[in-house]
Amino acid sequence: MTEHRYTLTLSCPDRVGIVAAVSAFVAQYGGWIVEASYHTDLETQQFFMRQEIRADSLPFTAAELRARFAALADEFQMTWQVNDSDFRKRVVVLVSQHDHCLNDLLHRWRSGELRIDIPCVISNHQSLRSFVEWHGIPFYYVDMPKDNDQAKATAFEEISRRFDEERGDVMVLARFMQIVPVDFCACYSGRIINIHHSFLPSFVGAKPYHQAYHRGVKLIGATCHYVSDELDAGPIIEQDTMRIDHGDTVDDMVRYGKDIEKAVLARGLRYHVEDRVLVCGNKTIVFR
Amino acid sequence: MTEHRYTLTLSCPDRVGIVAAVSAFVAQYGGWIVEASYHTDLETQQFFMRQEIRADSLPFTAAELRARFAALADEFQMTWQVNDSDFRKRVVVLVSQHDHCLNDLLHRWRSGELRIDIPCVISNHQSLRSFVEWHGIPFYYVDMPKDNDQAKATAFEEISRRFDEERGDVMVLARFMQIVPVDFCACYSGRIINIHHSFLPSFVGAKPYHQAYHRGVKLIGATCHYVSDELDAGPIIEQDTMRIDHGDTVDDMVRYGKDIEKAVLARGLRYHVEDRVLVCGNKTIVFR
Amino acid sequence: MTEHRYTLTLSCPDRVGIVAAVSAFVAQYGGWIVEASYHTDLETQQFFMRQEIRADSLPFTAAELRARFAALADEFQMTWQVNDSDFRKRVVVLVSQHDHCLNDLLHRWRSGELRIDIPCVISNHQSLRSFVEWHGIPFYYVDMPKDNDQAKATAFEEISRRFDEERGDVMVLARFMQIVPVDFCACYSGRIINIHHSFLPSFVGAKPYHQAYHRGVKLIGATCHYVSDELDAGPIIEQDTMRIDHGDTVDDMVRYGKDIEKAVLARGLRYHVEDRVLVCGNKTIVFR
Amino acid sequence: MTEHRYTLTLSCPDRVGIVAAVSAFVAQYGGWIVEASYHTDLETQQFFMRQEIRADSLPFTAAELRARFAALADEFQMTWQVNDSDFRKRVVVLVSQHDHCLNDLLHRWRSGELRIDIPCVISNHQSLRSFVEWHGIPFYYVDMPKDNDQAKATAFEEISRRFDEERGDVMVLARFMQIVPVDFCACYSGRIINIHHSFLPSFVGAKPYHQAYHRGVKLIGATCHYVSDELDAGPIIEQDTMRIDHGDTVDDMVRYGKDIEKAVLARGLRYHVEDRVLVCGNKTIVFR
Repeated sequence: MTEHRYTLTLSCPDRVGIVAAVSAFVAQYGGWIVEASYHTDLETQQFFMRQEIRADSLPFTAAELRARFAALADEFQMTWQVNDSDFRKRVVVLVSQHDHCLNDLLHRWRSGELRIDIPCVISNHQSLRSFVEWHGIPFYYVDMPKDNDQAKATAFEEISRRFDEERGDVMVLARFMQIVPVDFCACYSGRIINIHHSFLPSFVGAKPYHQAYHRGVKLIGATCHYVSDELDAGPIIEQDTMRIDHGDTVDDMVRYGKDIEKAVLARGLRYHVEDRVLVCGNKTIVFR
Repeated sequence: MTEHRYTLTLSCPDRVGIVAAVSAFVAQYGGWIVEASYHTDLETQQFFMRQEIRADSLPFTAAELRARFAALADEFQMTWQVNDSDFRKRVVVLVSQHDHCLNDLLHRWRSGELRIDIPCVISNHQSLRSFVEWHGIPFYYVDMPKDNDQAKATAFEEISRRFDEERGDVMVLARFMQIVPVDFCACYSGRIINIHHSFLPSFVGAKPYHQAYHRGVKLIGATCHYVSDELDAGPIIEQDTMRIDHGDTVDDMVRYGKDIEKAVLARGLRYHVEDRVLVCGNKTIVFR
Repeated sequence: MTEHRYTLTLSCPDRVGIVAAVSAFVAQYGGWIVEASYHTDLETQQFFMRQEIRADSLPFTAAELRARFAALADEFQMTWQVNDSDFRKRVVVLVSQHDHCLNDLLHRWRSGELRIDIPCVISNHQSLRSFVEWHGIPFYYVDMPKDNDQAKATAFEEISRRFDEERGDVMVLARFMQIVPVDFCACYSGRIINIHHSFLPSFVGAKPYHQAYHRGVKLIGATCHYVSDELDAGPIIEQDTMRIDHGDTVDDMVRYGKDIEKAVLARGLRYHVEDRVLVCGNKTIVFR
Repeated sequence: MTEHRYTLTLSCPDRVGIVAAVSAFVAQYGGWIVEASYHTDLETQQFFMRQEIRADSLPFTAAELRARFAALADEFQMTWQVNDSDFRKRVVVLVSQHDHCLNDLLHRWRSGELRIDIPCVISNHQSLRSFVEWHGIPFYYVDMPKDNDQAKATAFEEISRRFDEERGDVMVLARFMQIVPVDFCACYSGRIINIHHSFLPSFVGAKPYHQAYHRGVKLIGATCHYVSDELDAGPIIEQDTMRIDHGDTVDDMVRYGKDIEKAVLARGLRYHVEDRVLVCGNKTIVFR
């Protein structure tokens, strides 16, 4: 896990010889491939690939790897990147008052399970300040009064400013119960991860457990997805469900649901920060 | 499992003393309660109850049990019934060409796992005749040409006639790929069980696996429900999901999905024929 | 959830009329039964029962309920108790260095999901002191040097003294990596809950993930059980499994396994503190 | 699924450049790789690989592919094979009286889901003859009287003779309740697949559901594995579990367990016949 690695991810139009070309490129420098995954999307005939290479098997740095790979990438019209495991992703967490996802993420961070940096936590409530600051992480409050669009717009500008200042890589809405403005979504496309407390596309929008209760479903679920400009309709990264029965009230669902929400968010975020998620239209390829 | 039992199911307005009254009634005759389940619906304040009593512990027949229970039932304004395990439910199976659910149900029937009678199987295709008849079960063909409403109406009249002649208790749509007419649904309310190949309310209607594929969900599911006059919107009896990933095509989903469909239908039907399902509005109470 | 309730649990030799007698007893005082569950163990012909009664539906206190119930209990030779939801169970947590279960339990406690008191946390390491004390919970260190039986015996005496002083109801071994002395187990029979990181009875004892890796199983699991005098062989309260594959190393299993361990322990502890677990020989009845 | 494909599987000592060499080999002939999977076993430093290639993308036959690949295979000291999807594996099924797995396999076969040939079914009971023969599959009876070792030895000789005559590729013990002689196991190493009705290594040997009941586990399971000379200890291909509770009797477990057994066997067999399973010591790599 803690080994130094370079991760190459790419997509390009499918054709014969891509794997051979990339493998030969890596092999000529003695590169040791630790993990390799491929996928072709049948509708778009787009090819997707991910390789993890042991950094110590290559005679040069990630920068040099990028420089040398560029010619091959051009030849195959690749969209691509090389990430270096020594550079941890910077994850800014947004949260309201429900803290189960935050508590879970912070534990995974401080135990070293999630290899990320958390430059700050931002909230529209003060209640979690002490817990966050105990971790040595800065906590910022933004004011989001109900029914005050101007104040909300200002708050999102503040969030945007903080995120950019902190050189954030990804923003996690860890049960941040606010609808994100469309232009904000557009600005950070593919960089905002949300956890929605239903099995999407069932029960979009507010109070999904109430919706589930009234529909009488026998399972509840949670969905981790990239935020897009349509509410709860962005590319899905991870989902899960759990069994309930007729005896469970909405409060029971809320309580049980927390366990799926935090597990699904943690898995989805891990896939993202390990460069396992490639977006293809409104779908994701997740190379687990 | 094969013990002779009476099953009492009831619902009534909730109040103190229902369980005490029913228990005392059963106990005064020495009745041995093998299973007992209760539920109060919080929205309607309706109470639901199910008790299985060993037949040999009572000094009289099911008919006599019904006669004696009537006074108590009146006092509490109960909707109720007593079923005798010696009288197996008569299940008429409707099927098109996909036979995985039919194959599964017939095996559970012939192995004695599902304690039902199957008076006949009805299909709009001839392809399964030989397999059904090998089991010694009559097979009826009904003609359902595409885009011919008159012929369809006639076919449903024929189905209705067969079902009534065979004294059917419940009709199972075991992947019967035809939309059931509204008046037919109304006529057999609570007596038609369908298996839908998605996790409802996601992906109502035709081609749910195609819908799932295009939405990019990470789990697929199946739902067993009573048919109501709104398509795929009746009370849900049982559901389940299974994990897929980006590499799975629609054909893969269809193939994997069969395993959930047949498992979910078999569980749902078993709950129904064992009198474990009580309907409350558009929801079900399932006393497993 | 936060309603004031009395919970009656009992076991006695099975016979006709137990439910009727108990129900009539509760009903005569207008007692409103919110949940009721029954079970008969076929091997011992022992009957088990649990009822939750709304406290405000009864005209007297839990003490008076106990006093009045005693005669009935004698008649049926019941082992029984009445618990009052206003008196929270006092849970002493023991932990070594792995803190995922501790973090999970403390969050459930501070969010009000687990309705318990935690009078103290005891550890043979100092590393979790700050985190525990941030919660306002006393943290006690006990010295458990390797290969020093005398020191260990002293440490367990210290634990025992703390537990008794704090009037503990139950001790939770939240990944407390020490073998508990036999006489200590005997002293607190049915009051020590352990989480073992395998699907018991597979992989008893040390390093179960290593054992799982070498056997090549396709699922790993966790088991929450009461501690008995035989290692990892006490009555099982709750278990779960998750899928792994050939690519997962022992480290991966350790990492994924944490999520099952904390979920299984949290469910098992909740069942225990809500008086849902009744022990029958070396098995448990769990009235969920 | 029905596309004509060649499947290359191999293992060899791990070193840099294997993927590059194999990919270049395939690419030089314009071979279109549809699926590719790799794994390195950390303990043995053995590399494992599987590639599916579209047959119509190569200008020659499987035989020619084998001939050309041999030099490369030698260079890397590979153990390898190339399978042609037009040549279906020949699966001989052995069964006793429990027919749920047989019914499931035969349905998957006749619906085209499992792309295999079933040259015959062999049983030590006559009860399933009619069902098998309805499928047009020969059914052979072998006499296996209890406590008669000589007769059993003769029966296994007969099975061996049939299997060889029918040019069987793999033997499936679909709940064949007989212990297979050690020399028979040795003779067909890696070619006998068994379904055991427990989550191995828990509950080896006879009556695993009884063992599970008495241990009081909260989940039951099933395991599909290659038969080795030690009882229920061969390499595991696939496993699964399902939840039970205290109310479930041994008979209930037997009934519920059938659903896991048939699902796990069907998955395991599919992995095997699609050349997805590579054996590494007493473990398997399953390239799903």
